[in-house]
Amino acid sequence: MIRVGIYGYGNLGRGVECAIKQADDANLVAVFTRRDPSTVKILTEGVPVYHIDKAESMKDAIDVMILCGGSATDLPLQTPALASIFNVVDSFDTHAKIPEHFKNVDLAAKKGGKTAVISVGWDPGMFSLSRLYASAILPEGKDYTFWGKGVSQGHSDAIRRIDGVVDARQYTIPIDEALDSVRSGSNPELTTRQKHKRDCYVVAAEGADKAKIEAEIVNMPNYFADYDTTVTFISAEEMNREHSSLPHGGFVIRSGNTGWESENRHIIEYSLKLDSNPEFTASVILAYARAAVKLSDKGQHGCKTVFDIPPAYLSPLNSAELREKLL
Amino acid sequence: MIRVGIYGYGNLGRGVECAIKQADDANLVAVFTRRDPSTVKILTEGVPVYHIDKAESMKDAIDVMILCGGSATDLPLQTPALASIFNVVDSFDTHAKIPEHFKNVDLAAKKGGKTAVISVGWDPGMFSLSRLYASAILPEGKDYTFWGKGVSQGHSDAIRRIDGVVDARQYTIPIDEALDSVRSGSNPELTTRQKHKRDCYVVAAEGADKAKIEAEIVNMPNYFADYDTTVTFISAEEMNREHSSLPHGGFVIRSGNTGWESENRHIIEYSLKLDSNPEFTASVILAYARAAVKLSDKGQHGCKTVFDIPPAYLSPLNSAELREKLL
Repeated sequence: MIRVGIYGYGNLGRGVECAIKQADDANLVAVFTRRDPSTVKILTEGVPVYHIDKAESMKDAIDVMILCGGSATDLPLQTPALASIFNVVDSFDTHAKIPEHFKNVDLAAKKGGKTAVISVGWDPGMFSLSRLYASAILPEGKDYTFWGKGVSQGHSDAIRRIDGVVDARQYTIPIDEALDSVRSGSNPELTTRQKHKRDCYVVAAEGADKAKIEAEIVNMPNYFADYDTTVTFISAEEMNREHSSLPHGGFVIRSGNTGWESENRHIIEYSLKLDSNPEFTASVILAYARAAVKLSDKGQHGCKTVFDIPPAYLSPLNSAELREKLL
Repeated sequence: MIRVGIYGYGNLGRGVECAIKQADDANLVAVFTRRDPSTVKILTEGVPVYHIDKAESMKDAIDVMILCGGSATDLPLQTPALASIFNVVDSFDTHAKIPEHFKNVDLAAKKGGKTAVISVGWDPGMFSLSRLYASAILPEGKDYTFWGKGVSQGHSDAIRRIDGVVDARQYTIPIDEALDSVRSGSNPELTTRQKHKRDCYVVAAEGADKAKIEAEIVNMPNYFADYDTTVTFISAEEMNREHSSLPHGGFVIRSGNTGWESENRHIIEYSLKLDSNPEFTASVILAYARAAVKLSDKGQHGCKTVFDIPPAYLSPLNSAELREKLL
């Protein structure tokens, strides 16, 4: 049995807890929180909640620590700090800072003789793998990644910061015509506007100037100005009733050619349709937590990404079983 | 540069030759054939064609030998025989015999200090990987594999053996209603007949009894009796004009649930739409040939499958480039 610790208990931490419940080979040892542990109620009966200060003292009781903090401020500090003490997995997704994060975590993990896997989830994660496999197979080709339909937390937060907005939910939606044209193999050049649109649901404060709010949203640089954006004002009740879940998903498509004169066309498509973004991310993370423990047991220490890990390590089945059942 | 040999020059061998042309890091050293080499004309200028008897004498000139024979009689003998001399890759696809083949190849490769990768292509191969990743992520779920629309060589051959048949082409076609029901997440139990249908195009000999041929096809046990099968008689000219290419493809879909009460549903779908089955298979094989050489250089000898190989090894890019560009 793999003894797992959860470090940080928000949506992602709860998702990891649910994934552990489904795994026959993993046990939850403890949840660690920055809050007062007595105020944190978890789902699993009989499992303790500790303050994060207690984590280090439990290093011999935990095979892998799953870091469930955010990429902006938590993980850049937490993952290197914990990687010299525990095998760790995180979901660091600030793309531009991955090289720096990798270097910091690699140093710490090698120093402690531990294995760390960073940037695990679906993008970065499963989508990255799809891009890698497809581009290695079809070097003469073009990659497309579409996201959605799904809730973007960052864009929802940006709307919430506007004066007069009480609550907001933003859906990123891939545009069907763009998907169809990619799937046809025509390798189109697509602008930002042609690939995705953004639908926003907003609860405005009483008496707020809705026209002004809408204008501020659709013209917001980087976030909305380059997209066709629709804004719909709804009540707080409707927000809770219709928009409280966190669905997401998307498509990675590579279209490429083979043949002596590149005369044959091939389309590789990987897609996800997810009811719960955090729970799916957590399920990917738990599979890589299993891999982290196996790698560590084999002495393969340091920082890894999904690109470095043999697929078999994700499964609870052994190699002979995998060849027989899944090959 | 990776120095590649091609062992067997049919559709797959030609596909590998085309894939090498596209690769910046691979060179074709020689093609080996059982035929009289003077009768075999290849596409690449300046590359020699040798009889297979000459292969062993070239062991220091070739980094990886790609075996392009058939699974029925060629590969069970050729792969173990060559795996102690060369790093090798094959596309062995007789599922029930994979454990035995693996054992024989593993023994030979370890004896020779070489690396062998077996059962490479898209099924077994990329579809197997999709099944493995998806089932490791969503343990509470169900897998579905659909094939087509594409030409099945085995089924086409079975029709050709019928009395009065001059030529035949059989297309395996997934049934849309079945795909839709799987994608809806309803986890249906599907019969063989509900998943695929079979379309047959047949050139009959002059004066042959077409009704009898059709009855023989649709009632053929194992091959057609369990499917809705249509038979269309066409001319030899139409066969050549409309049915000379070898398209294929298919879908691997896993539908699974997460959440404390399994309340959230997720659909993972991987699909291929291929103009040329042998060329795509060859392109997958060349990527794994690159991996075989890297594994061998690291001293990781013996037999491997796609499950055992870190994805990064398939790419000509190094790990830092991959993290920057594709993660």
